[in-house]
Amino acid sequence: MDIAALRSANPDHWNKAAAIRALTLDAVHAANSGHSGMPMGMADVATVLYEKHLKFDAADANWPDRDRFILSAGHGSMLLYSLLYLTGYEGMTLDQIKNFRQLGAITAGHPENFLHDGIETTTGPLGQGIANSVGFAIAEEVLRARYGRQLVDHHTYVIAGDGCLMEGVSQEAITLAGRLALSKLIVLWDNNNITIDGEVGLADRTDQPKRFASAGWEVIQIDGHNPEEIDAALTKAKRSRRPTMIACKTHIALGHAAQDTSKGHGALTDADQLQAAKEAYGWTGGPFEVPGDIKSAWEEIGRRGAQERAAWEARLAGASERRQAEFARIMAGDTPKKLSSRITALKKQISAEEPKVATRKSSEMVLEVVNPIMIETIGGSADLSGSNNTRSGDMTVFDTNNRKGRYIHYGIREHGMAAAMNGMALHGGVRPYGGTFMCFTDYARPSMRLAALMQVPTVFVMTHDSIGLGEDGPTHQPVEHLAISRATPNTYVFRPCDTVETAEAWELALKSTSTPSVLSLTRQGVPTLRTEHRQRNMTSFGAYVMANFNAERKAILMATGSEVHVAMAAREMLEAEGIGTRVVSMPCWELFEEQDEAYRKRVLPGGDFVRVAVEAGVRQGWDRWLCGERGRPKKTGFVGMDSFGASAPAEVLFEKFGITAEAVAEKVKSLL
Amino acid sequence: MDIAALRSANPDHWNKAAAIRALTLDAVHAANSGHSGMPMGMADVATVLYEKHLKFDAADANWPDRDRFILSAGHGSMLLYSLLYLTGYEGMTLDQIKNFRQLGAITAGHPENFLHDGIETTTGPLGQGIANSVGFAIAEEVLRARYGRQLVDHHTYVIAGDGCLMEGVSQEAITLAGRLALSKLIVLWDNNNITIDGEVGLADRTDQPKRFASAGWEVIQIDGHNPEEIDAALTKAKRSRRPTMIACKTHIALGHAAQDTSKGHGALTDADQLQAAKEAYGWTGGPFEVPGDIKSAWEEIGRRGAQERAAWEARLAGASERRQAEFARIMAGDTPKKLSSRITALKKQISAEEPKVATRKSSEMVLEVVNPIMIETIGGSADLSGSNNTRSGDMTVFDTNNRKGRYIHYGIREHGMAAAMNGMALHGGVRPYGGTFMCFTDYARPSMRLAALMQVPTVFVMTHDSIGLGEDGPTHQPVEHLAISRATPNTYVFRPCDTVETAEAWELALKSTSTPSVLSLTRQGVPTLRTEHRQRNMTSFGAYVMANFNAERKAILMATGSEVHVAMAAREMLEAEGIGTRVVSMPCWELFEEQDEAYRKRVLPGGDFVRVAVEAGVRQGWDRWLCGERGRPKKTGFVGMDSFGASAPAEVLFEKFGITAEAVAEKVKSLL
Repeated sequence: MDIAALRSANPDHWNKAAAIRALTLDAVHAANSGHSGMPMGMADVATVLYEKHLKFDAADANWPDRDRFILSAGHGSMLLYSLLYLTGYEGMTLDQIKNFRQLGAITAGHPENFLHDGIETTTGPLGQGIANSVGFAIAEEVLRARYGRQLVDHHTYVIAGDGCLMEGVSQEAITLAGRLALSKLIVLWDNNNITIDGEVGLADRTDQPKRFASAGWEVIQIDGHNPEEIDAALTKAKRSRRPTMIACKTHIALGHAAQDTSKGHGALTDADQLQAAKEAYGWTGGPFEVPGDIKSAWEEIGRRGAQERAAWEARLAGASERRQAEFARIMAGDTPKKLSSRITALKKQISAEEPKVATRKSSEMVLEVVNPIMIETIGGSADLSGSNNTRSGDMTVFDTNNRKGRYIHYGIREHGMAAAMNGMALHGGVRPYGGTFMCFTDYARPSMRLAALMQVPTVFVMTHDSIGLGEDGPTHQPVEHLAISRATPNTYVFRPCDTVETAEAWELALKSTSTPSVLSLTRQGVPTLRTEHRQRNMTSFGAYVMANFNAERKAILMATGSEVHVAMAAREMLEAEGIGTRVVSMPCWELFEEQDEAYRKRVLPGGDFVRVAVEAGVRQGWDRWLCGERGRPKKTGFVGMDSFGASAPAEVLFEKFGITAEAVAEKVKSLL
Repeated sequence: MDIAALRSANPDHWNKAAAIRALTLDAVHAANSGHSGMPMGMADVATVLYEKHLKFDAADANWPDRDRFILSAGHGSMLLYSLLYLTGYEGMTLDQIKNFRQLGAITAGHPENFLHDGIETTTGPLGQGIANSVGFAIAEEVLRARYGRQLVDHHTYVIAGDGCLMEGVSQEAITLAGRLALSKLIVLWDNNNITIDGEVGLADRTDQPKRFASAGWEVIQIDGHNPEEIDAALTKAKRSRRPTMIACKTHIALGHAAQDTSKGHGALTDADQLQAAKEAYGWTGGPFEVPGDIKSAWEEIGRRGAQERAAWEARLAGASERRQAEFARIMAGDTPKKLSSRITALKKQISAEEPKVATRKSSEMVLEVVNPIMIETIGGSADLSGSNNTRSGDMTVFDTNNRKGRYIHYGIREHGMAAAMNGMALHGGVRPYGGTFMCFTDYARPSMRLAALMQVPTVFVMTHDSIGLGEDGPTHQPVEHLAISRATPNTYVFRPCDTVETAEAWELALKSTSTPSVLSLTRQGVPTLRTEHRQRNMTSFGAYVMANFNAERKAILMATGSEVHVAMAAREMLEAEGIGTRVVSMPCWELFEEQDEAYRKRVLPGGDFVRVAVEAGVRQGWDRWLCGERGRPKKTGFVGMDSFGASAPAEVLFEKFGITAEAVAEKVKSLL
């Protein structure tokens, strides 16, 4: 690359871009780790984007109608941190840049949305940002359709690398975006031909423009170091009626000795080479020093959107009070006031009617109550709408001709669905939930983990949650999936036993503001166990006494979901033989863990009890409740799965795997 | 569709295909569940494939040089079962067909490779079969390069549906196959335009031919009900120098009232409609009855390859004895005899030299010993070769111009890599292992679960296995991933503490024939703890005493991987204070669980000990060992993670999260 030619062609642009490059070199040098090459390669694209196109105001990172900028190639985090610092976002100080990747700094190795408001999403695991962006764009479309261009009218910009495009989830994302014609989604592909192992061609020769075109995208190819081409491409992309991919041919680690090599992808820490690169840039600032004129120019860019934001605020203030209040509520992620009373009314009705239904059907009954009063919900399913029972009667399908639709046919794209839902939750103003089979937690895992890490309240509706799904067999029967979700920090795993608990779980999931929820729901019918109406949300305790000792206190049965009624039946047998038995329903371990010890001990008292847990999944994790930390009982047992399932009718399988009331009663007696 | 026209155009073909359709209708009707439409739609394609192209001999399902047929659209399992029954595979009896989806039948809801030798892989979770097939094709290429066309020369055929192609993993598969020019891979796309939720267009409008072309595939488009077109396409595909996708335009549930509808995708059980469809087919057989002439014609197809197989066997018999023995060994999945002695020699050397290295580096040291003597290993990494340390010095890269290469650059495709490795393991003759970061277990999860279910010994090399990776932060730091893999049935999770244990773990992983292994390896250096040479593979016990009580027996510390040396240091502190402390290294819980109770109690005796577990992951699962089922100790504790990690240098993080020798010693003292 002829750096001198680039410099002289457009010095103003060059210096601004060089500021990103210099800060990146200094920060990575100081941290002695990180990724220098990507910010150095994409600095020109980012500069033009921020200078001429991105709608933002550094003074208000949370302005609802800002354009969203997603750094899908999250290893290039210094690109984002540089931009936030240079444009003057509060909190992104030079000290933060200097403390790149150090404990307590908001400049983490990869961008983390919860560390600074200017970071829209957490990236690093490749492909996630581009897949989130589909959700951002959907949220914008839905809100624009509802509130009009006066209040909602913004773009979602993504910088994605070769890694993002190689990950399978990117295919799910771009085909969904293409199908939905999300024209305000613009992906800037950092086409630098380098990955960690070497040239991209080592592992991939995909014709990316052709691939995006096959998914219905507009494609533009440019020199990613030419500001005019970048500007023209962005202008064109904003006018497109389809999502646009701009292939930006760039040089990784531009101007450094490691340019265009896989070494350039990583941490460039050699002091001499660093200095040589800065000299090639014509950079006069010392380490972490941005010359005043260049910093001023960037800060002016940071203020570029102030007027537009003020105008937007005036328009919002001009809206009706009802509309303003609603907009404020949904952007804050608050549930409507009447949610609890409606849920309570449903619980009361169910306790009286005592239906025997699958909890996936219970979930639908709850959604029929919730969706009409919570306009912000966006439902969907990965091609299992009828099985996941995720579509309530009032929901129309979100499509090119119905942007107000609140139901999304995600297609057979569990991973893409989960990532898109995270994007919606991050965007704000909508509350996403989506369904698939519990077993396919596996496909959605990377995004489910990120929901937990990012602290967004995405709701994963996971039906067919055990061998109780029957004949589809072990490929479809979750066994370890409750354990998987429970092992994940900051995740509520709800496994309700009947319609009442399902309603309570939904209430908690919807009221959660920073924790995702997994609803583990049955395919098969289960009886209503909560036949006495209690206004209190018992599921909020995580675990509670469903039925108490009658005869002399001997045993405590713990169970969740479809096994609570098994435990209840076992209790009847045991009580009939004079063995006093308590049944504890444990719909949410995490919430039980949050209770004080006194409550936990009231529910699971120590002493000389037999404790048996019943769940049609693996034992892993149950020993926490079987043993406890104190008041350990003498004898414990588990009735559940210790292998994969099998293909047969559900009732045959429960017999085969010994998950029956008789087996539970026998287990208790064998331990007494 | 004009069924009459199809019938009369080619009655011989029609009747054979109709046998598949009739058996499918009957089996699904009897089971009252399953998927009728796909086998009915693809019966013509499958018939032509089996009649004219597929190299197989029903008398020997395990003939190593057979063509592989992969039913990626696994819900259409009756297609495969019908073919196996009709062509006369032993074991696939009419009774099995009649017991479709019932307990104990080999005709499970979705095809399961371990139930019948004629089933090449387990499918159902969509996209897996097509992703496996890449591994099948790679294995064939490698073996052909080594043994020549005389012994290895076969194709891999895949039937994939819209669901397979919508799953992200399919993109990873087809781009890898395209890059590697796997010309003997032929995918037949069941282009029926129907998914469960409705028409494909509801969720997807991808131009699939264009998409495959962008990945370097040959694409042919045909009428999937026209036998001549099918035949011509297959002939052309076999001659291609690139992988070929044949887009077969079909009608789901052909000839049934539900044809071309999403209802047709599922179980068609209405008796009258079933009868009407059979009448349209001109089908004269009763339920489960295939007229003799049609069955005979199919059985003739089943014998079509007998002569070719005999010729192949003669060629094999003509090879040198050494070559025959080697071929037999690698196809059987046996390790070379000298493996153990070489591993033992390495252990001895390491115990003497006591290197302080990361266990990922230890793994490389083992591979340097293993790969030269195990010609069947195929290594690789998802673009982290230098970080995963997966490439030994003797390995060259598998590429279009080096088919003997044994190292694969999988690209940033963790899921595709895992699925391809499973395919290789299923093909036989090769032993795949591949690396990524432990945290990206998440991406590979669906295929890691299937490895366990399918009982194949794939080796997943997962490095950077804790907060010990440092500055890359929580997106890259596994916390729950040990728990996830341990929760999965039939999976060995090895977390070795030093190079000696790493060597032992590799030996066990390589000797495993029906259980996949996860190697959890550090990024950071750890000391050699096994400084006294022991010939015995101590890791094979799962857990063992690393250091015993010295002072009065008071505490037992349990730890794995990089935390064993932390426990050892804590022990020194405690012993110095007169607190007798045992350290138990637990590199593989599953193997410890397999030991008899006497051994387990010797290692973890009951009585009045404090037990503390140390692992830089979540506690979930540890209570099993902290409490035990009997001999429960009075006081237990855990030193590990209960949240996501953070971005900072590794040593800072271990301090921050309190995983230090001091913290462990304090924990013990607080419990005494």
